[in-house]
Amino acid sequence: MSKIGTNSLRVDANSKVRGKTQYVDDIFIRNMLHAKILRSSIAHGRVKHIDTSKALKLPGVELILTYEDVPKHTFPTAGHPYALDASHRDVSDRNILTGHIRYWGDEIAAVAAVDEHTAEKALALIEVEYEEYIPILQAEAALQKDAVEIHEGTGNIIGCHEYNSGEMEQALASADFIFEQEYNTSIVQHCAMENHSAFAYIVSNDRIIIYSSTQIPHICRRIVGQALGLPWGRIRVVKPYIGGGFGSKQDVVVEPLAAILSLKLQGRPVKVELSREETFIATRTRHAIKSLLKSGVTSEGLFTARSGSIISTNGAYASHGHSIAGKCGDTFCVQYTQRAIHFDAVTVYTNLPTAGAMRAYGGPQMLFAMECHMDDLAKKLGLDGIEFRLRNLPEPGFTNELAGITDYSNGLRECAAKGKQLIGWDEKKARYFGQTGSMRRGLGTAFFHYPAGTYPHGQELASARIIVNQDGSVQLQVGATEIGQGSDTVFAQMAAETIGIPLNNVHIISEQDTDVTPFDTGSYASRQSYVSGMAVKKAALEVKAKLLERCCIMTNLPIHSLDTADGWVVFKHNQEKLLPIADVALDSYYNLKTAAPITADISHNTRITTISYGCTFVEVEVDILTGKVAIIELYNIHDSGKIINHILAQGQVHGGVSMGLGYALYEQLLFDTKSGKPLNNNLLDYKLMTATDTPEIEALFVETFDPTAPYGNKPLGEPPAIGPAPAIRNAILDATGVHINELPLTPQRLFEKFVQSGLIRMEARENV
Amino acid sequence: MSKIGTNSLRVDANSKVRGKTQYVDDIFIRNMLHAKILRSSIAHGRVKHIDTSKALKLPGVELILTYEDVPKHTFPTAGHPYALDASHRDVSDRNILTGHIRYWGDEIAAVAAVDEHTAEKALALIEVEYEEYIPILQAEAALQKDAVEIHEGTGNIIGCHEYNSGEMEQALASADFIFEQEYNTSIVQHCAMENHSAFAYIVSNDRIIIYSSTQIPHICRRIVGQALGLPWGRIRVVKPYIGGGFGSKQDVVVEPLAAILSLKLQGRPVKVELSREETFIATRTRHAIKSLLKSGVTSEGLFTARSGSIISTNGAYASHGHSIAGKCGDTFCVQYTQRAIHFDAVTVYTNLPTAGAMRAYGGPQMLFAMECHMDDLAKKLGLDGIEFRLRNLPEPGFTNELAGITDYSNGLRECAAKGKQLIGWDEKKARYFGQTGSMRRGLGTAFFHYPAGTYPHGQELASARIIVNQDGSVQLQVGATEIGQGSDTVFAQMAAETIGIPLNNVHIISEQDTDVTPFDTGSYASRQSYVSGMAVKKAALEVKAKLLERCCIMTNLPIHSLDTADGWVVFKHNQEKLLPIADVALDSYYNLKTAAPITADISHNTRITTISYGCTFVEVEVDILTGKVAIIELYNIHDSGKIINHILAQGQVHGGVSMGLGYALYEQLLFDTKSGKPLNNNLLDYKLMTATDTPEIEALFVETFDPTAPYGNKPLGEPPAIGPAPAIRNAILDATGVHINELPLTPQRLFEKFVQSGLIRMEARENV
Repeated sequence: MSKIGTNSLRVDANSKVRGKTQYVDDIFIRNMLHAKILRSSIAHGRVKHIDTSKALKLPGVELILTYEDVPKHTFPTAGHPYALDASHRDVSDRNILTGHIRYWGDEIAAVAAVDEHTAEKALALIEVEYEEYIPILQAEAALQKDAVEIHEGTGNIIGCHEYNSGEMEQALASADFIFEQEYNTSIVQHCAMENHSAFAYIVSNDRIIIYSSTQIPHICRRIVGQALGLPWGRIRVVKPYIGGGFGSKQDVVVEPLAAILSLKLQGRPVKVELSREETFIATRTRHAIKSLLKSGVTSEGLFTARSGSIISTNGAYASHGHSIAGKCGDTFCVQYTQRAIHFDAVTVYTNLPTAGAMRAYGGPQMLFAMECHMDDLAKKLGLDGIEFRLRNLPEPGFTNELAGITDYSNGLRECAAKGKQLIGWDEKKARYFGQTGSMRRGLGTAFFHYPAGTYPHGQELASARIIVNQDGSVQLQVGATEIGQGSDTVFAQMAAETIGIPLNNVHIISEQDTDVTPFDTGSYASRQSYVSGMAVKKAALEVKAKLLERCCIMTNLPIHSLDTADGWVVFKHNQEKLLPIADVALDSYYNLKTAAPITADISHNTRITTISYGCTFVEVEVDILTGKVAIIELYNIHDSGKIINHILAQGQVHGGVSMGLGYALYEQLLFDTKSGKPLNNNLLDYKLMTATDTPEIEALFVETFDPTAPYGNKPLGEPPAIGPAPAIRNAILDATGVHINELPLTPQRLFEKFVQSGLIRMEARENV
Repeated sequence: MSKIGTNSLRVDANSKVRGKTQYVDDIFIRNMLHAKILRSSIAHGRVKHIDTSKALKLPGVELILTYEDVPKHTFPTAGHPYALDASHRDVSDRNILTGHIRYWGDEIAAVAAVDEHTAEKALALIEVEYEEYIPILQAEAALQKDAVEIHEGTGNIIGCHEYNSGEMEQALASADFIFEQEYNTSIVQHCAMENHSAFAYIVSNDRIIIYSSTQIPHICRRIVGQALGLPWGRIRVVKPYIGGGFGSKQDVVVEPLAAILSLKLQGRPVKVELSREETFIATRTRHAIKSLLKSGVTSEGLFTARSGSIISTNGAYASHGHSIAGKCGDTFCVQYTQRAIHFDAVTVYTNLPTAGAMRAYGGPQMLFAMECHMDDLAKKLGLDGIEFRLRNLPEPGFTNELAGITDYSNGLRECAAKGKQLIGWDEKKARYFGQTGSMRRGLGTAFFHYPAGTYPHGQELASARIIVNQDGSVQLQVGATEIGQGSDTVFAQMAAETIGIPLNNVHIISEQDTDVTPFDTGSYASRQSYVSGMAVKKAALEVKAKLLERCCIMTNLPIHSLDTADGWVVFKHNQEKLLPIADVALDSYYNLKTAAPITADISHNTRITTISYGCTFVEVEVDILTGKVAIIELYNIHDSGKIINHILAQGQVHGGVSMGLGYALYEQLLFDTKSGKPLNNNLLDYKLMTATDTPEIEALFVETFDPTAPYGNKPLGEPPAIGPAPAIRNAILDATGVHINELPLTPQRLFEKFVQSGLIRMEARENV
């Protein structure tokens, strides 16, 4: 029976439910010190003078490092594969600590003390004198000619690029309508359950051991090496269980500090654990992006020209830098067809917390703009939004040169048809037409696509190792990281399927340890089941072949006659059981003449990618007098290829849609517009949705089979987060006729827009 | 510069000196319970009734298991490779707990409590009623026809065998002299610094994790599986740093109990840590062996016939059982030549602590007998002891059919010549001839040989894995276990030598974890540098080949022109530096087209063994009036093939000789002759030598090159422990003319023998 396409229980379900999985903070090392970071109380400026003498006298303080004590060279923090070509490497623009303050909360000094409380008390005793500059909080301000450079020599630009294809002027001229509109998204934070945390210590030979809540242990190893100026082989990073990352832990944030503190303390363990307040501002956020879209359309509803210009507000340090704007460009170009296209983007330093990777990497911003734009256009054209989209979708099998990707399987049209039917699109559209009153219903949709991994822009290397145990079970070791998404379960299913053994005979090692774990760049870009899955399949095939070869020697049967199934070597022609795999395994260990334990240790360099598709369909009820939006029905329909595990797939969609709903309706990290001080960097004031705020989410799948994938599967981790915001915005437009072009869609913003558009006045009158 | 034959510092020197290496007891798991074992207060009998009700009421007691609660099937404990042939498996004769008491201290019940103190208090509250039998403390008593069977159906015999070659009667008839003598060795204990300790817990899916101070993690995994009746793949054994084993931790003693306690407590961590008093009696001891040797010799001093009959006192459970007596047979047969040979052995159950493997596995017993016998014969023949031995040594290059081994390198004659010269044999022999007075000097020697590993009697499988890091350093993972002997350093040297990188660029993983560590049966039989070294070399050669292949692709140079040296790819003909290995490594990770990290994951099935040789030369001064023996000079000269690391080799010899000196002069585990209760199972009453008791030990090497070995090397771990006891006994004989045929050579025993032989009376008269 196939292990693919099941509802298999998570391999870690039991241990997670019973609270037995260990996270960084569950791991205790004797004599561990706790470090706390002295953060700037200004957003822009320089430290003129720092005095740690009083703090150093506090009993229990073991070490204070300031920006004067750390290596002077810069290093990057983004979790991308390293590049042999220096021009393709991430921007290297920060030190471990800094005297040049670039955002409110920048890291000036660190205290290592016997406990957290003492470290915090010591922070309060450090005296800092600043030279203050006016904070640059808007991208536009940063781009002004006379703007102070946040990083010298950059003009406050981290990156910019432009892409043109086709004859733009001609294409615009051939349009019947030209429409231009600006859309804005907000700064949000990942809010993984587990804050950033790491500890470092040294046992021998100055090799630094780091336990970290990271998505990218092997990359973290490299970056710590770069930050400290040490050979990478001297760093060892261990990733235990992780309480979520969502891209925030695809950056190396706390590890270099923990490492340098331990190094300066003769290897004593030092832990750097951020508070929730620090995680909000001192890790990563999602870029606020302003998109100016301009489209030419024929009266038949076909694009002649599409143009997008985006400005991405990156904050204080580059992190993933311009890559996200680059991904926006790919996303913009691939989503629909046209005769001519233009895209330009600039990513800008500001005195705000650093933005980085966050679930769907540019998708939530670019497709908020594009999918709102689609409904704005459809409305202008008098076309149904679905119909308008369908007319402009690229043909299945297309190749997009800019993104460097080819479509090998495409279920988007079927997703759209399914969503339309499930939500009762035509029937409800007719029913709600011309509605009045303060409670109004509306329908909205948004289409999305998402390719796996970073290829062709970066390396996609994955490795896996399998060891067959004496009882016919196997150890499966992957460099890809389980961070809560369920990848360990899916990899175990893949190995069980290909080797031909029961799922519970696959023992997957969930901990990654760069000393012993096969190399993989980690968990990001929805790459794991597609890219790392390739490695698992390759290793499993090797193991199966070795099992059958040994069985041939044991039985003298020819290899072509044999197969495996559910823990047995079977005859291929009739599946008759021949020999338990355990017997073959035992022979591989204990045959006095030929013993050689069966293992596979392989890597796979994936030089292709695949595209997931899907759409969100939503029905909302808008309370016009209060601006409150209720989600009545929500369907997320995904073409993620063959679904490996339905229950986990649904979980991914539920989580991603929930994140998308928060992005749509509630979440925004706010700053004092003068000082740049964060206003709501805590879970009381930052309005994260709770379970009771969350509507029923229907997760559905149109299963295609991607021939390039290990098991026909395609990405699913990130795409669910894309659709809700534009779909809800479009449903509000449908319900009220009001275009709201920025996120989040809070009651206050809706109320203001309803007043501005005259809707509230009119309503109020009617109700009098 | 070669990395072989150096004085390289131990890879763990720094961390050990600084107290940073973690042993089982240094590792803390939250909520860990402590288990204590209820041990019998009789040596032979049955539990008629056990009442745990009072103990269960003690606050803090979480679980009490008695012999009634454990699986009823038996399991073996010896650390041997498993055998496909059931008749070659270790004797399976024990349960985790027992109601059938077989020695004083047998394990009846276990208490798991919140701390050790509570567990101990609970033990005192358990009420046990025994049915007592008369303890059988002597092998002869156990072999009597009407003896109670300690294990039903065995006749108290664990194993016996006999070997005959040549025409014995004819050979005896052709002898000029026939001499027969009995020799006895005593029960001693390993006294590793670290007592036996293990803890077990479960995180998920009922897979049991065990941290253990074990020499044999992979075998431990199998035995815990057998003991609990679980598939072996469900067990995970982790070996951190180990504070010595010497064979005592080549048995699985505490792990099954820790595992079953945790299993019954829903996976809660449970630790079983033995006290020193328990380690003495409840782990393993060295077999006391009685050897009856009979030899026919010609007047030219050549053996015509040799016959050996041994009785090995094994104690309560089989453990390694008859294997040690089997090894005695091999040792006896290989040591000298003759026309006809007979050997028979029986291993016997008694109501004493269980004997098992201990440094040199039968060698210290068999060669005590044989080498004392050599001097007894030489004395009778009026021959010099060295000359007599040299006349009877097998010719270099011999094959011994019984032991199934061939000699490929043999430096024994050179060792003997060196020792003879160093100690000034002829000159001192002449000087001391006819000495009188109460302080008398004497010279003694003993020759020894020791083959590596268990082949041809068992599997010798080893595996190694190497991963090349981005900086050109490597991770080296071996299943072979560092237990203090320095094997990690030697393996690192081997890898550095073969790959062609600096030693500090080899990062060896010292922890073995059966989930991720390549398979190896572990540390015993002086096998590691010979057997596991083969695997390290094989993996290193594969890595070197892959590095050169990639360099060829990078440079277009033909592979035959390239070599590696000290971290560089060099031209083979002139060693000119071409490219840092780090550059090749970086390309292997990040070449967009061809990336494939360089790794090797191999196993090696060694179907051969090699023989180490050596001899001990000692000069003693005997105080006849007190029976005290002072070591004046001691030389241990070893042919252990090519020495990989001189300073570590000397350390092995110092440690082994020290153990041999304790065995010779002081150590003996004593029991009440009626009750079988141990009398000195603690470090106050058991006379282990301290540093101040230890004389200067001169460790010297005659370096041969063994062609079958990975680097010409041969075993060294165990052989140093063999020579001291017979050499000292022979030196006492030389000094006093008194034959002392049993160990240890304590003042009391010497005094009694001197009185018995009239030496003391005579002396006293002279002194009056």
